[in-house]
Amino acid sequence: MTSPALPTPDDIEQAAARVSDRVRRTPVLHVEAGTFADPPVALKLELFQHTGSFKPRGAYNRVLAAGTTSAGILAASGGNHGLAVAYVGATLGLAAEVFVPEVASPVKVDGIRGLGAQVVVGGAHYSDAYDAMITRSAQTGALVVHAYDMPEVVAGQGLVGRELVEQVPDVDTVLVAVGGGGLIAGILTALAGRARVVGVEPVGIPTLHDALRAGAPVDVEVGGIAADSLGARRIGDIAFAVATAADVQVMLVADDAIRRARALLWQRCRIAAEAGGAAALAALTSGAYRPADGERVAVVVCGGNTDPADLVERA
Amino acid sequence: MTSPALPTPDDIEQAAARVSDRVRRTPVLHVEAGTFADPPVALKLELFQHTGSFKPRGAYNRVLAAGTTSAGILAASGGNHGLAVAYVGATLGLAAEVFVPEVASPVKVDGIRGLGAQVVVGGAHYSDAYDAMITRSAQTGALVVHAYDMPEVVAGQGLVGRELVEQVPDVDTVLVAVGGGGLIAGILTALAGRARVVGVEPVGIPTLHDALRAGAPVDVEVGGIAADSLGARRIGDIAFAVATAADVQVMLVADDAIRRARALLWQRCRIAAEAGGAAALAALTSGAYRPADGERVAVVVCGGNTDPADLVERA
Repeated sequence: MTSPALPTPDDIEQAAARVSDRVRRTPVLHVEAGTFADPPVALKLELFQHTGSFKPRGAYNRVLAAGTTSAGILAASGGNHGLAVAYVGATLGLAAEVFVPEVASPVKVDGIRGLGAQVVVGGAHYSDAYDAMITRSAQTGALVVHAYDMPEVVAGQGLVGRELVEQVPDVDTVLVAVGGGGLIAGILTALAGRARVVGVEPVGIPTLHDALRAGAPVDVEVGGIAADSLGARRIGDIAFAVATAADVQVMLVADDAIRRARALLWQRCRIAAEAGGAAALAALTSGAYRPADGERVAVVVCGGNTDPADLVERA
Repeated sequence: MTSPALPTPDDIEQAAARVSDRVRRTPVLHVEAGTFADPPVALKLELFQHTGSFKPRGAYNRVLAAGTTSAGILAASGGNHGLAVAYVGATLGLAAEVFVPEVASPVKVDGIRGLGAQVVVGGAHYSDAYDAMITRSAQTGALVVHAYDMPEVVAGQGLVGRELVEQVPDVDTVLVAVGGGGLIAGILTALAGRARVVGVEPVGIPTLHDALRAGAPVDVEVGGIAADSLGARRIGDIAFAVATAADVQVMLVADDAIRRARALLWQRCRIAAEAGGAAALAALTSGAYRPADGERVAVVVCGGNTDPADLVERA
């Protein structure tokens, strides 16, 4: 593996200048002691971001940093990243083309189309869609917006961390879900040692966990209830390098723990997160992560692209 | 009508001292221009309060102001107020008894029971449940917590307004839904002329609208999709007096407008409000209330006790 270019705190500041007036500064809900853990917990409600996840932050930063985008922008994703790139294209007046594998959810594909993007369906796996996107970029010169493994994408996601330390200045620990690692790498860069960051992964998608154990990014099986948002096959090179440098702690949580955390978010806060958006909280509610007395814990609720039909028992 | 005792700004401060560490300081989401109206809109997300609505604020203030509550606390409500009084009883270690009419939703009754309150079902109408509560209070000395027409209840709800002006200091106009009027009266008292307050009612429950027209509280028919949370038969005497003194503007919104506002809150923000919680926003999204250029508008999203199953189209 060659060393990737890593984003710096200065890149986060540049991202803030480019992106802050285009994304929502998502609010923080302070939840009292005993609700999700012994101490109070600060929930960073990033599910209220445009398109229902943090993804537009990185996509905007990548596109706006690139300068020339007259040939349009490209993504490979049948999920939150595809929605974000479609949204960014629509709001910036750029043609967006999103490559999705045949297994992509029709609802999400409709959502991407609904934002005005061209959807290209093809191939059995995400890697097929990705390869088709790279081929298209070589043909047309359109700008590739990677879902996580680009410095500008990581720096954009880092704005979640930049906002969080402004909103919760005394934060000690931030729990964040990991898929391809763009969000955790951005937050680690933005916090730059000001707070501990703990990565949380579903047992079915241990991209960072297995990479740290192997000493390099490795392919993992992808499965379980959070696969639609956290289902990367391997951790990004940037995220791996940033996480290694920060000696980050990673916890695995079972699907049942994620399911329960998602239900508790609704029951106790009326927040409807997607499974991946509840994964970080699951580390607390399952007891996998036990804060010390007085530890100031924040949890990023990173997505809400869910069907909330199962949150309430109907009479 | 005799003149009721009206809460004062000082009562709001006393309520803050009593209640602030027991309720959540709910966050504000700033939503960009063009999303719900021409200017940006600040959403006060009071649906994230304990039990899913603003109601615990007033219930706590009434109970804590009363001092002696060893005989327990009483409410008549099959809805949000009943949940709030049950929650307040549970957290303060007081026996709570909630009187509900036979028509109350089994799901909400189960929720009230689930919080540990005794539920007494009886009578065809809310007024029957209310009368039974008054009789019980006379027998046992338990403390009545009215759903809206008590100075301490109104002052407690006013904390929503007190927080809002701290969070959005330049707010010009606050849109708030009206049922019995406790919330709008509290907010009017808390703002005390610092911002305009506009009341919003479903066309099917025009309690304040009709009272202002008649010059006194009058009974109205109760119907439509927001009846489960805004369905008071007449405006409270306190709210009528406060609203009259403030010369408050009241707008009516159709059920379809409420339905659409609720859907937009989900589609554009991933916020799952109940119909009554989306009613104030409906005044904006329907165009009934048109802000001036540069007007700083806040909307109270006051409840989330909804079944969110209909928010997403399923494939």
